[in-house]
Amino acid sequence: MSSVDGVGVSPGNVPVYHGDNLKAMIDRRVRLAEMVLRCLICGLGVLAAVLIGSDTQVREFFTIRKKAKFTDMKALVLLVVANGIAAGYSLIQGLRCGLSMIKGSVLFNKPLAWAIFSGDQVMAYLLMASLAAAAQSSVIARLGQPEFQWMKVCSLYEKFCTQTGEGMASALVVSLGMITLSCISAFNLFRLYGGNKAKSSGRW
Amino acid sequence: MSSVDGVGVSPGNVPVYHGDNLKAMIDRRVRLAEMVLRCLICGLGVLAAVLIGSDTQVREFFTIRKKAKFTDMKALVLLVVANGIAAGYSLIQGLRCGLSMIKGSVLFNKPLAWAIFSGDQVMAYLLMASLAAAAQSSVIARLGQPEFQWMKVCSLYEKFCTQTGEGMASALVVSLGMITLSCISAFNLFRLYGGNKAKSSGRW
Repeated sequence: MSSVDGVGVSPGNVPVYHGDNLKAMIDRRVRLAEMVLRCLICGLGVLAAVLIGSDTQVREFFTIRKKAKFTDMKALVLLVVANGIAAGYSLIQGLRCGLSMIKGSVLFNKPLAWAIFSGDQVMAYLLMASLAAAAQSSVIARLGQPEFQWMKVCSLYEKFCTQTGEGMASALVVSLGMITLSCISAFNLFRLYGGNKAKSSGRW
Repeated sequence: MSSVDGVGVSPGNVPVYHGDNLKAMIDRRVRLAEMVLRCLICGLGVLAAVLIGSDTQVREFFTIRKKAKFTDMKALVLLVVANGIAAGYSLIQGLRCGLSMIKGSVLFNKPLAWAIFSGDQVMAYLLMASLAAAAQSSVIARLGQPEFQWMKVCSLYEKFCTQTGEGMASALVVSLGMITLSCISAFNLFRLYGGNKAKSSGRW
């Protein structure tokens, strides 16, 4: 890969002249990182949703048959929904990102950059909030809350809790990836508002 | 307030020549919004921490005397700590912001902008996560979780739960304010990386 193609000879919205090689290289690396992160989030989001969504355990207490499933805990339902949405959103964004890499265009379209930035921000906070709520529920389920006489349910449903934990680990990676992506999309958006510095840097 | 002073005759790191009035006006408004938000977060963060931290209720069940306090619920302790940190952080940042407004300097210092951006991001996610965890605990306390035989404690400690709810409403405003601030600091940081567009906009 030469450092000029993809940006220097760009058919994108605004071509960059003068072969600013360093900027072109940074641009391509940022776009590659974005692409990798979006694929990672898509895969791990599906994994988290499947791991938690398919999680059940049946136990018999004397004559009573009890089944634990993820819908018993509303926070887990929220986590499954949030990760499902994140996976779908990342798939669409990943396709857009791949398309712009193939076309070699650079993002200089403010409304699109604002839309991507807003979407990434909402997803990052939604994922983080749903994970925190599920983590709180899980801590209570694991340790109990003796002050309120909330008993440890994980000692009854060990396998159920372990699988939920695996799903949450996957959801944690998804959240961290989405936070990183929201920083990348903030970079892609707000650098469009630069220019002050270039103007006042003594070249004028 | 004229639209030139504060930026046009700036004693800051990099003065802006040619009286770019629109940019100067946007700069001053962004800085003013930042200042107002930091003060708001400082005040409401203290309010949230005090409301929840001072919340206790004593009840007598026949011969047993029971006291509910915020330390019974670990998520509330986390929320108090997070809001306390946010208030202190915002006080320091507010002072910095006020100082830069008095001096009339514009932020063109990348390491400082990175530090502010990172701090705001960490605070925003910390506040959001602690609020989500506390909200999850509160929902269980309010509605109970019959599948796990976790009983509603809010029916026993009505006054305690109401005051916690007020504290959480305050914490919600703090979180939203910090999210807005993290967008503002992203804008302040990443526009320093602009310039591509100015160069290729036909003026060169």
